[in-house]
Amino acid sequence: MTKQIYLDYASTTPVDPRVLKAMLTYFSKKFGNTMSFHQKGAEALEAVEKARKTIAGIINAKPDEIIFTSSATESNNLALKGIAFANSKKGKHIIISSIEHDSVLNTANWLKTQGFEITELPVDKRGLIDPKDLQKAIRKDTILVSIIQGNNEIGTIQDIRKLGKICRENKVYFHSDAAQSFGKVAIDVVKDNIDLLTSSSHKIYGPKGAGLLYIKSGTPIVPLLHGGGHEQNLRSSTVNVPAIVGFAKAAEICLKESLENKRLTKLRDKLIKGILKTIPHTKLNGDKVKRLPNNVNITFSFVEGESLLLELNLAGIYVSTGSACSSPKLKPSNVLMALGKNPEDAHGSIRFSLGRWTTNSEISYVLKVLPEIVKRLRKFSPFTKK
Amino acid sequence: MTKQIYLDYASTTPVDPRVLKAMLTYFSKKFGNTMSFHQKGAEALEAVEKARKTIAGIINAKPDEIIFTSSATESNNLALKGIAFANSKKGKHIIISSIEHDSVLNTANWLKTQGFEITELPVDKRGLIDPKDLQKAIRKDTILVSIIQGNNEIGTIQDIRKLGKICRENKVYFHSDAAQSFGKVAIDVVKDNIDLLTSSSHKIYGPKGAGLLYIKSGTPIVPLLHGGGHEQNLRSSTVNVPAIVGFAKAAEICLKESLENKRLTKLRDKLIKGILKTIPHTKLNGDKVKRLPNNVNITFSFVEGESLLLELNLAGIYVSTGSACSSPKLKPSNVLMALGKNPEDAHGSIRFSLGRWTTNSEISYVLKVLPEIVKRLRKFSPFTKK
Repeated sequence: MTKQIYLDYASTTPVDPRVLKAMLTYFSKKFGNTMSFHQKGAEALEAVEKARKTIAGIINAKPDEIIFTSSATESNNLALKGIAFANSKKGKHIIISSIEHDSVLNTANWLKTQGFEITELPVDKRGLIDPKDLQKAIRKDTILVSIIQGNNEIGTIQDIRKLGKICRENKVYFHSDAAQSFGKVAIDVVKDNIDLLTSSSHKIYGPKGAGLLYIKSGTPIVPLLHGGGHEQNLRSSTVNVPAIVGFAKAAEICLKESLENKRLTKLRDKLIKGILKTIPHTKLNGDKVKRLPNNVNITFSFVEGESLLLELNLAGIYVSTGSACSSPKLKPSNVLMALGKNPEDAHGSIRFSLGRWTTNSEISYVLKVLPEIVKRLRKFSPFTKK
Repeated sequence: MTKQIYLDYASTTPVDPRVLKAMLTYFSKKFGNTMSFHQKGAEALEAVEKARKTIAGIINAKPDEIIFTSSATESNNLALKGIAFANSKKGKHIIISSIEHDSVLNTANWLKTQGFEITELPVDKRGLIDPKDLQKAIRKDTILVSIIQGNNEIGTIQDIRKLGKICRENKVYFHSDAAQSFGKVAIDVVKDNIDLLTSSSHKIYGPKGAGLLYIKSGTPIVPLLHGGGHEQNLRSSTVNVPAIVGFAKAAEICLKESLENKRLTKLRDKLIKGILKTIPHTKLNGDKVKRLPNNVNITFSFVEGESLLLELNLAGIYVSTGSACSSPKLKPSNVLMALGKNPEDAHGSIRFSLGRWTTNSEISYVLKVLPEIVKRLRKFSPFTKK
């Protein structure tokens, strides 16, 4: 059997065995509906409220400010559409960055069809937003600013606190998509001036099917899912007890494994340095320092990213081009284009994302086989400098 | 330890151990993201597409007509809002019944704030819709009819095929919420003239966190979750592989356990007859024959439903008043009110819902203890006929 090296943790993570163990009893034993008014309902509700308290504590929120959803995509949709519909009388202008995840970008694009106006903030070559640009973009009719904390493709981490402060001073709601950064970057919703925050379970070794939206008390928002009134009437739908229990357990483990991010940063930098040193015409995308501890995004000039991905797959190394979501689309990544790359270089970029089970020897193995693969592909590339 | 008798299967069901077994490998081993372009992604995608084919086959749909969601509530929101936003140029009139689940009713109510007009069809005393009323309600600007197949509170099953035919003849999209009926009533989306159909995993011994919306090919619909383009761009969000695998396995088991519904019908009728015979001032709600095989809904006059529920809970018997979703609200059920009940009788109604692990001796036990409990409560009731 071929060696299998998973370096696509930013797409999704395996469920940590400790998380799965915590979930198991909620499938067939403590299986109740949290809205049921009897013992089986009570034990389900108790588990969910405990999970809510755990996660609230981690980001310095109050438990009733945490709304559980099915995913970060749902949370981002709820944040943008919910604030838009609830505040449209105040104004119809929304600001996002030019490197948002598709679930913010495409939600914003849909809101245009409902009469909203969207401003996309530029980023510099490393993917950083200039707070002055945000200040300039805010208008009287601006109701919401949504900026991703840790970018899913290039790993760049924004100064959320500073951006949030500008929003607070201008009385504009501030949302941040922390799907990639939650569990890796410390978040304090109070100090960071955050009104809405998205995070996701399956990016932090929790199960798929759970996400959350932190909503600061008193923020007017229209639900995305109407129905039986669950989650304080902000997200109707039978509460997914095992997934939420798993999500909280996963978040708790991230907090406890305080050395994990240091270890990953070291492996990340070994991979970056190794590639840049041994393979010519390569370039790191994103900021070197303000960077998610597990993200490596490299442009391999004169190589098609898709071909490189497939060759690595054959070698048992699993990576991605751009975000997992946009991989099969074969259009250049909007994030890389926002950095000022040309389409060819954007197409020749690969994201390696490391995680809990990534080892030093795996990184060494990648550094051993990668130069040969790139060399081979460049021989056949029509773009190759000869 | 007290005896535990779960008679709230319509609220949620325990995951069948065979279902959980089928899911397990997809948490920590075959954990990939279906959008990833490598081996781990491929094995996840394969599992989801197999599940899609299985479920499509059961309702005579094409696999690409099945969109997986996180729940029936999400599916109902997608159906109503999606059709409304996509077809608003044709018209802004939507017809629902007066006994819809909250996720249809409250979605329709929200659509009113967006300029849509809603007509609620009446039902007779047994909860049945007269097809002539539907025919009369359809206007030139009607774009959608949404009618629940098996009612979640009173169990009444509508003649979906006849209602669908009227919609088809009038070129109006027809949606049916089959969250309670899927797996219990045979559905053929082609013969039943259905354009959109909702179903749910956790009502049929599958996990929470999975639902589906069947969307007939060519039906224009706007997504509820915008993002990375999953599910044919109709439901973005990382695909919940284990939940979907479990959902399909659960549906398969329902199909194979062909005697289950007969067995439940027998137990259901034993419970109904037993209650009506031994407890005075009781009445069955819903149709006697056109009824979900597991639903028993009884009005106990001169009793507060909540009190009865709590007394039964102490006796280890778990039931619900109205739907689980509206239980804690203490407002009379809109479904029971639509049958023409007075608020007091609506408040004095209890739903017993049976399931896979309900035994004959459990039903006998309920029939043994229930009369005594009702008698006791009536002694203290201010409404009691003395």
